[in-house]
Amino acid sequence: MSKSKKFKNAALLIIGNEILSGRTQDKNINYLAKQLFSHGISLEEVRVIPDVKSTIINTVKSLKNNFNYIISTGGIGATHDDITAESISAALKKDYCLNKKALKELEKYYKNKSDLTDARKKMAYMPKGSKIILNKVSGAPGFQIENIYVFAGIPIIVEAMMKEFLKNIKSNTKIYSRSIKTKFFESMIAQKLENTEIEFTDVRVGSYPIFDGKFRGVEIVMNSYSKKNIDLAFKYLKKELNKKI
Amino acid sequence: MSKSKKFKNAALLIIGNEILSGRTQDKNINYLAKQLFSHGISLEEVRVIPDVKSTIINTVKSLKNNFNYIISTGGIGATHDDITAESISAALKKDYCLNKKALKELEKYYKNKSDLTDARKKMAYMPKGSKIILNKVSGAPGFQIENIYVFAGIPIIVEAMMKEFLKNIKSNTKIYSRSIKTKFFESMIAQKLENTEIEFTDVRVGSYPIFDGKFRGVEIVMNSYSKKNIDLAFKYLKKELNKKI
Repeated sequence: MSKSKKFKNAALLIIGNEILSGRTQDKNINYLAKQLFSHGISLEEVRVIPDVKSTIINTVKSLKNNFNYIISTGGIGATHDDITAESISAALKKDYCLNKKALKELEKYYKNKSDLTDARKKMAYMPKGSKIILNKVSGAPGFQIENIYVFAGIPIIVEAMMKEFLKNIKSNTKIYSRSIKTKFFESMIAQKLENTEIEFTDVRVGSYPIFDGKFRGVEIVMNSYSKKNIDLAFKYLKKELNKKI
Repeated sequence: MSKSKKFKNAALLIIGNEILSGRTQDKNINYLAKQLFSHGISLEEVRVIPDVKSTIINTVKSLKNNFNYIISTGGIGATHDDITAESISAALKKDYCLNKKALKELEKYYKNKSDLTDARKKMAYMPKGSKIILNKVSGAPGFQIENIYVFAGIPIIVEAMMKEFLKNIKSNTKIYSRSIKTKFFESMIAQKLENTEIEFTDVRVGSYPIFDGKFRGVEIVMNSYSKKNIDLAFKYLKKELNKKI
């Protein structure tokens, strides 16, 4: 859990009572996790927290120094419970004020001037110094301030904003992944998996039971930043698994 | 984010690289959130963290004093990456040792003695003083130590263990919930929602846009521990929404 120059890591901050009450099944975590992984960014923590100002402030403070990127979703709409922008301003000790570029985006979207009510104008308020993140779906932009990227909560808008994020960050690394399915029980191959991780220290080996009422075996997943070593580890483990157990 | 005697709160700790890499779509958060809500327990934080001992230790330490219940899922199987029990022992400064009742459960499940290998016996190791949580699906139990409840990660086993949890805790409270669907935009009713929360301070009002490519309106959700006040708030808001906008 520490920032690195070579390998970038990230944390997600999912803001929303509706996830915590069980009313809404979150769909953003898995989408964002996959996108980060496929761009070589290691997602190392997710927090789901309520729309409570002090909680948002404390969480942002505790995450911002430990990760290269913090991506938050939720709480940037037009109602009283949309307090993400205000809370992040407070966490970073920045003024919470009208962003002119954000206002322009709203004006483009709400062509009829009377549609741009005060409640909607609230969506152009952000921490001072923020860069907007375009929202091609519904106008109101997200924003970036320092290493924090603030997205809406609606999955289709999250996807649009994530595309903007990925365009703007530079990621030169790739995470390589290989997997093996076996019919062995986890307990029978535990030692071999551990040995693989000991032999190849930059390869992470995970094992996931396949279960549909009965155990059907195990999927072994290996991840690494090194293509060479993951290929070697894959060969090594394949050979080990073919030995008599 | 503080423990209370009257109203119980909880945090979930989802331990698993497979969620963070996007390989697996988490199914436990929503199930557990719904169960807690329907038993009057307010879920106030979820953390998803990797199978890294120091991260588990730090997270357990930071959560345990702020919530009545901590429920963790994942990392109690038979392989090298199953380090939850060992890490929680370290976080609580308890010995990590063989639990006799847990061993008995394994012996019951693996009737053929040679099936109970050393790797599987690892699943009976827990923090000293733990109470086991029965696993009617696959034998290996979870455990409770202090206010921490440790479940497996496989959803069907999580369900079985959650049923055991709910049998054993006493919850005398209930969270009441009412919702209203409207065709108004959020921004048009923002002030009315805020007024409802100001009028009824123990009622939480959330608004969730209904979006399927176009905005179709808003679902307003109200939650409260007070049946009387949620009914009053519901009536109040209904009346407000019927007024001319």
